[in-house]
Amino acid sequence: MSAKVGIIMGSDSDLAVMAKAAQVLEELEVEYEISIISAHRTPEKLEQYAKSAEERGLEAIICGAGGAAALAGVTAAMTVLPVIGVPMYSKANGGMDALLSTVQMPSGIPVATVAIDGAKNAGILAAKIAARTDSALAQRLKDYSKNMAEGVTAKNEKLGKLGYKAYLEQM
Amino acid sequence: MSAKVGIIMGSDSDLAVMAKAAQVLEELEVEYEISIISAHRTPEKLEQYAKSAEERGLEAIICGAGGAAALAGVTAAMTVLPVIGVPMYSKANGGMDALLSTVQMPSGIPVATVAIDGAKNAGILAAKIAARTDSALAQRLKDYSKNMAEGVTAKNEKLGKLGYKAYLEQM
Amino acid sequence: MSAKVGIIMGSDSDLAVMAKAAQVLEELEVEYEISIISAHRTPEKLEQYAKSAEERGLEAIICGAGGAAALAGVTAAMTVLPVIGVPMYSKANGGMDALLSTVQMPSGIPVATVAIDGAKNAGILAAKIAARTDSALAQRLKDYSKNMAEGVTAKNEKLGKLGYKAYLEQM
Amino acid sequence: MSAKVGIIMGSDSDLAVMAKAAQVLEELEVEYEISIISAHRTPEKLEQYAKSAEERGLEAIICGAGGAAALAGVTAAMTVLPVIGVPMYSKANGGMDALLSTVQMPSGIPVATVAIDGAKNAGILAAKIAARTDSALAQRLKDYSKNMAEGVTAKNEKLGKLGYKAYLEQM
Amino acid sequence: MSAKVGIIMGSDSDLAVMAKAAQVLEELEVEYEISIISAHRTPEKLEQYAKSAEERGLEAIICGAGGAAALAGVTAAMTVLPVIGVPMYSKANGGMDALLSTVQMPSGIPVATVAIDGAKNAGILAAKIAARTDSALAQRLKDYSKNMAEGVTAKNEKLGKLGYKAYLEQM
Amino acid sequence: MSAKVGIIMGSDSDLAVMAKAAQVLEELEVEYEISIISAHRTPEKLEQYAKSAEERGLEAIICGAGGAAALAGVTAAMTVLPVIGVPMYSKANGGMDALLSTVQMPSGIPVATVAIDGAKNAGILAAKIAARTDSALAQRLKDYSKNMAEGVTAKNEKLGKLGYKAYLEQM
Amino acid sequence: MSAKVGIIMGSDSDLAVMAKAAQVLEELEVEYEISIISAHRTPEKLEQYAKSAEERGLEAIICGAGGAAALAGVTAAMTVLPVIGVPMYSKANGGMDALLSTVQMPSGIPVATVAIDGAKNAGILAAKIAARTDSALAQRLKDYSKNMAEGVTAKNEKLGKLGYKAYLEQM
Amino acid sequence: MSAKVGIIMGSDSDLAVMAKAAQVLEELEVEYEISIISAHRTPEKLEQYAKSAEERGLEAIICGAGGAAALAGVTAAMTVLPVIGVPMYSKANGGMDALLSTVQMPSGIPVATVAIDGAKNAGILAAKIAARTDSALAQRLKDYSKNMAEGVTAKNEKLGKLGYKAYLEQM
Repeated sequence: MSAKVGIIMGSDSDLAVMAKAAQVLEELEVEYEISIISAHRTPEKLEQYAKSAEERGLEAIICGAGGAAALAGVTAAMTVLPVIGVPMYSKANGGMDALLSTVQMPSGIPVATVAIDGAKNAGILAAKIAARTDSALAQRLKDYSKNMAEGVTAKNEKLGKLGYKAYLEQM
Repeated sequence: MSAKVGIIMGSDSDLAVMAKAAQVLEELEVEYEISIISAHRTPEKLEQYAKSAEERGLEAIICGAGGAAALAGVTAAMTVLPVIGVPMYSKANGGMDALLSTVQMPSGIPVATVAIDGAKNAGILAAKIAARTDSALAQRLKDYSKNMAEGVTAKNEKLGKLGYKAYLEQM
Repeated sequence: MSAKVGIIMGSDSDLAVMAKAAQVLEELEVEYEISIISAHRTPEKLEQYAKSAEERGLEAIICGAGGAAALAGVTAAMTVLPVIGVPMYSKANGGMDALLSTVQMPSGIPVATVAIDGAKNAGILAAKIAARTDSALAQRLKDYSKNMAEGVTAKNEKLGKLGYKAYLEQM
Repeated sequence: MSAKVGIIMGSDSDLAVMAKAAQVLEELEVEYEISIISAHRTPEKLEQYAKSAEERGLEAIICGAGGAAALAGVTAAMTVLPVIGVPMYSKANGGMDALLSTVQMPSGIPVATVAIDGAKNAGILAAKIAARTDSALAQRLKDYSKNMAEGVTAKNEKLGKLGYKAYLEQM
Repeated sequence: MSAKVGIIMGSDSDLAVMAKAAQVLEELEVEYEISIISAHRTPEKLEQYAKSAEERGLEAIICGAGGAAALAGVTAAMTVLPVIGVPMYSKANGGMDALLSTVQMPSGIPVATVAIDGAKNAGILAAKIAARTDSALAQRLKDYSKNMAEGVTAKNEKLGKLGYKAYLEQM
Repeated sequence: MSAKVGIIMGSDSDLAVMAKAAQVLEELEVEYEISIISAHRTPEKLEQYAKSAEERGLEAIICGAGGAAALAGVTAAMTVLPVIGVPMYSKANGGMDALLSTVQMPSGIPVATVAIDGAKNAGILAAKIAARTDSALAQRLKDYSKNMAEGVTAKNEKLGKLGYKAYLEQM
Repeated sequence: MSAKVGIIMGSDSDLAVMAKAAQVLEELEVEYEISIISAHRTPEKLEQYAKSAEERGLEAIICGAGGAAALAGVTAAMTVLPVIGVPMYSKANGGMDALLSTVQMPSGIPVATVAIDGAKNAGILAAKIAARTDSALAQRLKDYSKNMAEGVTAKNEKLGKLGYKAYLEQM
Repeated sequence: MSAKVGIIMGSDSDLAVMAKAAQVLEELEVEYEISIISAHRTPEKLEQYAKSAEERGLEAIICGAGGAAALAGVTAAMTVLPVIGVPMYSKANGGMDALLSTVQMPSGIPVATVAIDGAKNAGILAAKIAARTDSALAQRLKDYSKNMAEGVTAKNEKLGKLGYKAYLEQM
């Protein structure tokens, strides 16, 4: 089965974070592909990738980049697919440079921006988009939310039983 | 034909900005509905809205809110649909409060955030999502991009003919 | 005796910080309850909690949350009790996202916001509110302040005796 | 009947904003007093004010100040009453200086901080505190919330009837 | 004589600011060309422009863009010429988004960034670069600096004569 | 009698703000001189000014500059006199650029920085320094403070008499 | 001989940084006293300290405080002496809260603010003020500057001899 | 052969970062000289350096400085050569102080600013300027870009072969 979601990033230094998008897509049983393509260092590759994305069957593209993060915006300019931007944390600015470079797009070229280092949420958002044509996936997403809620409830019950001191010691 | 995109906002003071989402959806011939619902002032209405959105046929929800902007996040927590957040500009902080309140969502609950006051782009992003099941809309989006490009090219040619002084005088 | 102060937080990753609210309430002999409830992951639990808080005898609710911190605001929207928000520090933004998401509330729904990671002060503030109907608690708060002042004075005297070099070596 | 809430501000240039606290307290039928007292220019007056506040029957003190806003913190240091801080907007920094100067209090001395220029919410928060000993006031606060919700609902219905274009023209 | 400096901008809304680069280049007698080309809306035009710039005889390219300002970086990725970025002011963020999007380039692709709205300085910087192969231009730049210094000195003398009150009245 | 305080600024666009330093020095009867000297445009003039300042009898130098505000720091590097920096407000950044450029001096070269556009306080600070050798001036500064306090007290009494509504109408 | 400079800080957690002010004053042979006094926790002690400072012979007071740093401002309000503020670094905000709380003083009450954690420069600034009445100290300050310059020159010569690789290895 | 590029920095604490400019210039076979010269501590040395730079044959000067970074601006004021500024990271502010102090130059004195700690890019930018008169260097720069692109492509292929899990384990 062909990939529904493309994950690209500007550098392999982003891979540890962007892997979380891949992991959650695996968990949600969504096919994906993952690549290193740079808006600044390999612009031709990016052009090929973005322009062929729709016909290759992708439903959304996730782009992770840091600093003057042009990757998501340049990709969005070359495809009709929804593009999701993940601003990468960096020591200087705490990722505010990447956040603003990703979210403050000019009129006409939207990028769906998630939190700094929010690759996992980018994966879930891509799945929510892909679920528009896949009701089984929509159901898996609902189950995922339910599990999340149950996890919080379980922790709350544990806290009620143990009290905060014992709970903290077990963390 | 039923609405494909829901536009909601916390206050009618956000309407002048959020109207741009409606306008671009009209231009792209996407059915939408527009409402004033507040996460803080009318939480029950929001719950009804968000929980019924999928079965009412919406493909995406656009949420505009300012300051401690909880609307998009709370909506996203109650629906499997992709939720798009529009942070509203405000004098204090220049909208950074709304941007951070919208984009920095916890793991598991993504909000697709666009630029401060970026309601037009929110409309286009919603259309891109709806286009995943509507190839005619996908084509209209491609035409929209092409027109945008031609508009830039026309302005460039005008600048080439007039020079910058005459061009500025005509603006 | 029933709890006077409720402490809630969005995730058990906030527990180490929020425990400081519990500790200072113990020190001030104020009954409290502590729970993990998420505005985004368990909204129904939060609704139950907030709507029953007044009749359960609480005088104030302390809410700790990070990032796009909606917990305090959503709680404040559903109760007549004073709600105190504790913005959590995070690496990206240094907690500015949580601070702005907590403090910049829309008109009509105040959140009493304390410093980033200021859970201890949230506990003291809750005690100050509860002390409005408990003069013995008010006296304990005055003693607490007096002890704090004496602690500073004792340190100052030690510094005067030792000089800064010896003082720093003993720290 | 004596004042339940004290409103103080560092300068009469803050009065236009701080008047909103007075107005909402009038609306909620809470007695208040309003004064101009500066932490930096009239420290002795502030000391007298803060130290006598509890015995004069106040339940909370609202402090509005801009820039290096010391008023709320210095007041909080001298009274067992809950102190609410209103950071004032200013052109430079957009009020971030006052927000941080008000909210980032040292351990032991909490200030209940509201939004930049959030004097109205400060009034409501003071009323919520005073309502802990006044069930009629608690009821008026619940009515206030209900009215707020109905206002939003009415606007939403109007928007549904008129559509956004006609609605915007009437604003 | 062919253009030595290319001035490009993403939108004609940037023209009033970018015209200052053109004006100072005219003043310094440096041939330039000025165009509207968008990294996001007309990426193919940008590619043609950037890739042909060196052989067309340009010595430097000045790029003005606002928000998620990708223009300078994408241009720099496609030419061996020095690229100068002018971040445009905008109401939200005061141009910090454009500044960070322009200056925080990844390793390997520098952009010579000037101040927010600093188009005049971009023109002077381009002239300084072009002057490396044009000693007459270098001399004109030295004269320009000298004139600037004399202007300050003249104002200082006027202030000495008039005093600040009369000076301010004449401004 | 010779000037005790030197006021310099980088541009006559700073004069309207810097005039407030001159005015308060006149009010405090401190002799001053006022000049336009730029660290970047007239560095030789600045060197002459700074190096001769002590022997010309100045007790302190006030430097006003905006943006990348080097004036105060460069002056401080060339004199043993205390140098006071006034960061100028600007639209972009709200003067944060000038504040950080003025205050974040390297070890060994302090600049006594006042608030953004705080020229009046710079004048008072210079007077406080000059008062170390002039007890009559110290007395005038004490009177100045006392008058300030009385002004606040008078406004407070007026507010008490009029109430806030009438007071606001008279502003 | 009595102290010329007073160094105070709000907490002994500030001592490691504030000790640098003491060290440089020792190096410059300026008598000083060092104390822990808190604007919020021991306001009476602060009042005694500030009001007696001039007659006790101090020439300047250095105040170090973090977060909502009121110490320098409150001290400045109670003495005719120049007050120097040292904003303390903290994890959240990187010390921006303390910087703004210290520097953005209201009109009439200046604080001479130095860099975040800039206690050493605060000491030098205090010495520059004290040197206005002590020409031997002025000479020591000039020697200090000269030594600093020679230190830079020596390092530059070492870099010239060793090259950067060997120089870095020796650091 | 004489140096084409000068690298200067305010302190040897900047050397580890600034060495990256030297390294890339070595890689690109561009002659350079490297020095420690401070705008604040050794202003005379800086004046000599900047005023003699053109005639000594330099084509560009790279200046690295942190905090209130005046080095690049003061240098730019004294030479017709293009000056490149490298803002240094620091714990407080994450280097935003140095970035703003470097980039926000007054009209007439441009500094070509690169990213925080972006010394490597400063070296490449200097080489791009020097390449305007050296076609062999221009070719080496093109090869450098090509190698960079090939490096990204190779990593992408490796990721395609290994998958992200194995790739991450090998990092």
